[in-house]
Amino acid sequence: MESIRTIFYEEPELKDPVLIEGLPGVGNVGKLAAEHLLDQLDAVKFADIFSKHFPPQVTVDDDGLIKLVNNELYYAKDVGSGQDLIILVGDYQGLTPEGQYELSDNIIEVARKFGVKRIYTLGGYGVGKMIETPRVLGAATDEELIEEMKENGVEFSKGEPGSGIVGASGLLLGLGKIYGIGAVCLMGETSGYFVDPKGAEAVIKILAKILDMDIDLSDLEEKAEQIDMITSKLKEIEAPNEPKREDLGYIG
Amino acid sequence: MESIRTIFYEEPELKDPVLIEGLPGVGNVGKLAAEHLLDQLDAVKFADIFSKHFPPQVTVDDDGLIKLVNNELYYAKDVGSGQDLIILVGDYQGLTPEGQYELSDNIIEVARKFGVKRIYTLGGYGVGKMIETPRVLGAATDEELIEEMKENGVEFSKGEPGSGIVGASGLLLGLGKIYGIGAVCLMGETSGYFVDPKGAEAVIKILAKILDMDIDLSDLEEKAEQIDMITSKLKEIEAPNEPKREDLGYIG
Amino acid sequence: MESIRTIFYEEPELKDPVLIEGLPGVGNVGKLAAEHLLDQLDAVKFADIFSKHFPPQVTVDDDGLIKLVNNELYYAKDVGSGQDLIILVGDYQGLTPEGQYELSDNIIEVARKFGVKRIYTLGGYGVGKMIETPRVLGAATDEELIEEMKENGVEFSKGEPGSGIVGASGLLLGLGKIYGIGAVCLMGETSGYFVDPKGAEAVIKILAKILDMDIDLSDLEEKAEQIDMITSKLKEIEAPNEPKREDLGYIG
Amino acid sequence: MESIRTIFYEEPELKDPVLIEGLPGVGNVGKLAAEHLLDQLDAVKFADIFSKHFPPQVTVDDDGLIKLVNNELYYAKDVGSGQDLIILVGDYQGLTPEGQYELSDNIIEVARKFGVKRIYTLGGYGVGKMIETPRVLGAATDEELIEEMKENGVEFSKGEPGSGIVGASGLLLGLGKIYGIGAVCLMGETSGYFVDPKGAEAVIKILAKILDMDIDLSDLEEKAEQIDMITSKLKEIEAPNEPKREDLGYIG
Repeated sequence: MESIRTIFYEEPELKDPVLIEGLPGVGNVGKLAAEHLLDQLDAVKFADIFSKHFPPQVTVDDDGLIKLVNNELYYAKDVGSGQDLIILVGDYQGLTPEGQYELSDNIIEVARKFGVKRIYTLGGYGVGKMIETPRVLGAATDEELIEEMKENGVEFSKGEPGSGIVGASGLLLGLGKIYGIGAVCLMGETSGYFVDPKGAEAVIKILAKILDMDIDLSDLEEKAEQIDMITSKLKEIEAPNEPKREDLGYIG
Repeated sequence: MESIRTIFYEEPELKDPVLIEGLPGVGNVGKLAAEHLLDQLDAVKFADIFSKHFPPQVTVDDDGLIKLVNNELYYAKDVGSGQDLIILVGDYQGLTPEGQYELSDNIIEVARKFGVKRIYTLGGYGVGKMIETPRVLGAATDEELIEEMKENGVEFSKGEPGSGIVGASGLLLGLGKIYGIGAVCLMGETSGYFVDPKGAEAVIKILAKILDMDIDLSDLEEKAEQIDMITSKLKEIEAPNEPKREDLGYIG
Repeated sequence: MESIRTIFYEEPELKDPVLIEGLPGVGNVGKLAAEHLLDQLDAVKFADIFSKHFPPQVTVDDDGLIKLVNNELYYAKDVGSGQDLIILVGDYQGLTPEGQYELSDNIIEVARKFGVKRIYTLGGYGVGKMIETPRVLGAATDEELIEEMKENGVEFSKGEPGSGIVGASGLLLGLGKIYGIGAVCLMGETSGYFVDPKGAEAVIKILAKILDMDIDLSDLEEKAEQIDMITSKLKEIEAPNEPKREDLGYIG
Repeated sequence: MESIRTIFYEEPELKDPVLIEGLPGVGNVGKLAAEHLLDQLDAVKFADIFSKHFPPQVTVDDDGLIKLVNNELYYAKDVGSGQDLIILVGDYQGLTPEGQYELSDNIIEVARKFGVKRIYTLGGYGVGKMIETPRVLGAATDEELIEEMKENGVEFSKGEPGSGIVGASGLLLGLGKIYGIGAVCLMGETSGYFVDPKGAEAVIKILAKILDMDIDLSDLEEKAEQIDMITSKLKEIEAPNEPKREDLGYIG
């Protein structure tokens, strides 16, 4: 068995598509954001990615149907001002460093095959405390992109993230740069303690502005309110010692 | 040395055989069940599977004879209503995730070579407490199979197993699905604390019904009684704090 | 770089040589025994084995000269009743299970190239307590060999070693069996707490009998006496709780 | 993706260049020394080395620009008495033993391609206490080199480093020896507790003497003074229990 097996169910014709990655990470911000996009854009799955670098495991749904753990590729056409999108989601990132490199390299190959001109990786930036209004921090492969992002409200803050960007959200930028594909990481601030729909909302708002999309956020807002209620109750029960900001790196 | 070396001692002619897997896992339910089948069906070993993914170890028998740790393939012809079987047993599963994928992929190749049309993987479902009458839970690659299993007494219960199925019992379903081989995992309930012949008995009863086999269970019943006696005595000595059900995943 | 690089400095012509392995393990019994043989037989190094599976490390001798960590192959001609020997020694075994398999498989290839007809792997059998007169336990690839070993004083004891034989001393038997090379593991009893010349002495005595060699053991006896003195002193200082026998497996 | 991808931006013509390695290690002595050389010699980057054996990570600079973690190759021409240099620096060494071997083997290939005749690997030698005047210890591939080093003030001390040399600083010597490239490891004494510019200074002084270079050391001296001030203050606050010398190995 090859290390990675990508099975295409369709070979969509896409015009200069933008690739958006949202895999599990800090606060699952990127995963939540990308999955919300899938729903709102009625995106179509066109490929499954299976790999030895994922856990040797199947998930079982409520009916008893199994699914080998995987990553999935979706497309959405004519989004916002006419842009085509490829969206990468999944339950896992690679289990080892080598696996992470191979999986991201495989995605870059897919990106090149479909003529991807820009990559956005979505993630959370763990700050170790509850955030009322999360900022969206950025990192990118070149200066022009950084300027463009700033105009759209992305913040670039000296020393943040100090520990770099780990995982697919980082590697797709690093490998993209080698292959000449402009790439941006959008990191929504999050405590890092919970799955964080508020961070995901902040990321999508910025991405919607960049891509000129109109995305309904009511689902995420509802989830954010539920999380707020739970954490408020938890706060009443116990006043925790807040871990220091520097304890929390970014994983992507 | 290749990663996996399968040595065939015979190339049996089998008609649409069913593959049954019973490797070590929770309560060794699957291993016990498959080994009981081997005995009762006078199955014939036709292949050894050696692999770098197993421990670098030989076992030594009572006479001093060594055996490199392996997995083994047996066949049994004209079972039940005329069905041929391939049975996979062994002392170990792969030590790493990559190893698990490669070993299961290798089994699927063997399955395809012999024209296997259906796979049953046997395992235990750890529930963290002693079970009087273990249920047999199921998971499968498609809905028709689920219906067929329900008719044979297999239970499909929402949220069970919540954590999915890990190891060969899961991968053979996941990879089988990719290659179009219908596959079912039969999980006998077990505490997960002991090697559990009672869970194995429950699994075989169901499998015998499915395959229309007549299997003598007295050996397993005897072993189950011995375990019952031991655990009863242990209970008298100490009243343990039962771990919570959610602490115990399924590994297969 | 290939995983294993074997550099031959000479291609000796050997007649049906016997391969003897003594790599680090429990009590370093096998290593001590094999190195003692090298000295006593004036064996000649004919190959270095370097590998990614060893630690990424050089050793530095007293003059400041470095050596990449390795395994080494020596030969000795016309030993005992006219037998040629190949002796495998080294500072390390492979760091991973895969590495162990690849390294042992590589040795089997060398063995086949030189027409090796018999393999003896030397090791320690940890019993968790000080032993006055260590037995030499055996395990082998076939029954004839077991009989032959018994005649030479090797003991075969039901349930020993219960946990099998791990590492090169096991794999060379397991892989040898696959390739039809008769192989024996000779395990000298040892506490497992110290480097144990007494265990090594016991192993060499048996091996000398088998191969009809006359080996001076005074060096090992001297070392054994030194260790005895140290352990006697330690016993005076503290009366330790002896670990139970079943806590100690065999690694070889 | 290949395991290691070396991207050359220039193919400089170099005459019998000397390769100098300074990757992270004990006290970052080698890294500091090599980076100081880069600055003082206005060395030119001619290659990036990316690898699956590095962490799956990008660094982010103060402007928000990312860089995939890597090793880098620089050259400097006509240094000292007319010598050309290749200098290897980077943020990481390989994460696994196999990775370390592959990365060092790749460097040796580059060295052979450019006709490198001598390798100096720079590192720290951790002694577990503050050192007023650090010695520079050596290890080398042959006796002539050791004599040459002694004449330049490198110390060769029996039993130091007792645990050998781990990582690139060791492997480049070990693999260099196999390929017939003379190689020396220069180890500046360091406590091992801090990034240690004083150890780096000592190493550069020796290297400058060997290569007849005139290197300004004021930057490193300044940094060393800053570290001295910090450690003096720390000493006032707490009188730590000094770990024993034997607790600290050398990693290079």
